[in-house]
Amino acid sequence: MKILFKNARILTMKDDKIIEGCLVVTDSKISYVGPKLQTGFFDQVIDCDGNLLLPGFKNAHTHSAMTFLRSKADDSSLHDWLFNEIFPREANLHKGCIRELSKVALLEYLSSGITAVLDQYFFPQEFIDTCNDFGFRSVSLGMYDKDSRPVDEVLKIMNKANKPNSLATMVIGMHSEYTGTDEMFKATEVLLNKTNSPFYTHLSETISEVEDCKSRRGVTPMEFFDSLHFFDNGGAIFHGVYLSDNDIDIIKKHDVTVVSNPSSNMKLASGIAEIKKLLDRGVRVALGTDGPASNNALDMFREMYLVTGLQKLKNMDPVSIPAFEVLKMATVNGAYAMGLKECDTLEEGKLADLIMIDLSRPSMQPINNIINNLVYSGGKDCVKLTMINGRILYRDGQFFVGEDIKEIYKKVQLLTEELNQIK
Amino acid sequence: MKILFKNARILTMKDDKIIEGCLVVTDSKISYVGPKLQTGFFDQVIDCDGNLLLPGFKNAHTHSAMTFLRSKADDSSLHDWLFNEIFPREANLHKGCIRELSKVALLEYLSSGITAVLDQYFFPQEFIDTCNDFGFRSVSLGMYDKDSRPVDEVLKIMNKANKPNSLATMVIGMHSEYTGTDEMFKATEVLLNKTNSPFYTHLSETISEVEDCKSRRGVTPMEFFDSLHFFDNGGAIFHGVYLSDNDIDIIKKHDVTVVSNPSSNMKLASGIAEIKKLLDRGVRVALGTDGPASNNALDMFREMYLVTGLQKLKNMDPVSIPAFEVLKMATVNGAYAMGLKECDTLEEGKLADLIMIDLSRPSMQPINNIINNLVYSGGKDCVKLTMINGRILYRDGQFFVGEDIKEIYKKVQLLTEELNQIK
Repeated sequence: MKILFKNARILTMKDDKIIEGCLVVTDSKISYVGPKLQTGFFDQVIDCDGNLLLPGFKNAHTHSAMTFLRSKADDSSLHDWLFNEIFPREANLHKGCIRELSKVALLEYLSSGITAVLDQYFFPQEFIDTCNDFGFRSVSLGMYDKDSRPVDEVLKIMNKANKPNSLATMVIGMHSEYTGTDEMFKATEVLLNKTNSPFYTHLSETISEVEDCKSRRGVTPMEFFDSLHFFDNGGAIFHGVYLSDNDIDIIKKHDVTVVSNPSSNMKLASGIAEIKKLLDRGVRVALGTDGPASNNALDMFREMYLVTGLQKLKNMDPVSIPAFEVLKMATVNGAYAMGLKECDTLEEGKLADLIMIDLSRPSMQPINNIINNLVYSGGKDCVKLTMINGRILYRDGQFFVGEDIKEIYKKVQLLTEELNQIK
Repeated sequence: MKILFKNARILTMKDDKIIEGCLVVTDSKISYVGPKLQTGFFDQVIDCDGNLLLPGFKNAHTHSAMTFLRSKADDSSLHDWLFNEIFPREANLHKGCIRELSKVALLEYLSSGITAVLDQYFFPQEFIDTCNDFGFRSVSLGMYDKDSRPVDEVLKIMNKANKPNSLATMVIGMHSEYTGTDEMFKATEVLLNKTNSPFYTHLSETISEVEDCKSRRGVTPMEFFDSLHFFDNGGAIFHGVYLSDNDIDIIKKHDVTVVSNPSSNMKLASGIAEIKKLLDRGVRVALGTDGPASNNALDMFREMYLVTGLQKLKNMDPVSIPAFEVLKMATVNGAYAMGLKECDTLEEGKLADLIMIDLSRPSMQPINNIINNLVYSGGKDCVKLTMINGRILYRDGQFFVGEDIKEIYKKVQLLTEELNQIK
């Protein structure tokens, strides 16, 4: 299968230059990017009409199947939200509903130009199967659970996923320090030693999380995990709103990525992460939407706008975080954090995970600076095409995932009404 | 011309109930809203397929023709931005370019479900003509200018605009206290006395604006305008980020609306307005996008999300500002501030300024709470149809404004390149 994109503007994300020319996809990979018009036989020729190709966005922190909780408990206090709204409803979750609930999220990712997610939730095998069926690229967290996922079960799912050319991979993580038990830390240590995986966890999302850890253990959550050597193979932390200078030293020492979730941190009133400080210290920052219960949209344009906008406010300085830095967070940095180095830029030999931005949307006009247009005025309505692994899964508002979208919505609505009954 | 919308969900904004039924538009007005299936002859029948009708958004503060400055000077300090980037380029503006530059903004408004704007910029007659040609509803600020708009000229434009059934109206305003001269205050007083117009101005956008006014005049900008009796017929202030308790008393006394521009205030690092406090004090709050140089998108979904999100952060309280309050700001409160009381809700006899939201977008699914879905996960991709004064101007991504969109973009690109040459 050979697809030619012609008359394109191309932002490869190797740098901030925009090439005018062609891009060729052969099967799952990019086989040409450059100014020369390509000739020969193609199965499909797409005239981009001057529209922009760039790498797909990498959503480096999410909980996809939480769609059933979207708009269910907004405008509540964090404690009420978690203990009275979220946890009792999550207790109703069963294996059979993860596939349908995740599909709504996958559709939204495609509509926002997201070509891969790092997902963390219950029943990861079901999530992986759903992504594979859709043709969506996923990285899932393998997390120990005494009842449903003992060490052997996590290793089994991981071995099944991590095959060459697989759309799915699994890495090792934990929910957080504050939900961890000694048994869980021990099991996670075993998993990390057996797999040499990088490590992923929620970390320092709220001030009380950090303070509680300090009074319990005498150290910050980052210092605690460092003492366990969990980050010795790198990885990422989710949120990182409240990090000490020593935390940042540890992050740098182990080449850990901070995955920021500005929208979720805003909506739950957790705070504004110190992104400018992290960048000044040379820390790699990526972006995530978090789940649909806390954000509520699954939209990388929102995260891009907020990660720079909120820094301008926090530092009372409109210079904070230029647009190209933000675009790097949403693409190459996310890919690095997720172990997807073959999906980070548009170059020959890389995997064909790319999107086309419709520059004829009024928010993309006029063209003073395409990168700034994307970051400061872009939105889902500008996403004209989303391709993953060489397959077009979304184009001109239509989804090509092999299923009837209305049927998915019907099933999810029924599940949502069932799961949201608090017993 | 009679149009039937059937199989609709309808949020009238009289309250937060959602009706399932029909809406009929006869010429420019709504002639039926309710659950009964309407029969008889219709020029057009639109099957809404369960999608949502609600009043169009009212963008209560913008500078439409600034599209040429979009993405031109982002990530600059406020002083650099204004004095080295914006003002020198605005000096290049001439009457002949306002029409084209405004058109790009009008297209973006339509794509975001905005059916009326309160615009403030140079050459208002050109802006009014453009809106009228497109069929777009506008309120323009008539502002005195010694050279281009003496008192008689403002009155002439205003008399021409303010006719019964006109799509355009004009009200009286000033740019701000800090750019005002004695001569301008005098002329504005004359204009207000001759027209009995409410009064509109930028006010207390930055801390330095307030402090400078206090050291110059011994009072806040609000106190200063109150001493001139400019708000005696009500009106609105734009921004209102730094308001004293006495300012709020004056605002309440004169039934003034505070038009908040959360995105612009964030991007220019001006601060976060005290919206929760204003609401607690019973002040009416509306929303505006501000212009495309400072925001940069012209998107009411962004403003709705931010006005509640930023309050949650400012007050460190996720309860701050429920979704329905936000939706009122974007619709009925904006209409009140703009003097558009016939366009505020969907009721028989009201003007047919309405939008249809596509509930089959993944961000609108599942349906736990439609209002929360709109405010917390809505975006331009959810706007299926925009109708103004009974005419459909936007549907399924296409614009029906009587002009070739690509031709508009071409002309605006040339103008943008010409105007952005700093001499």
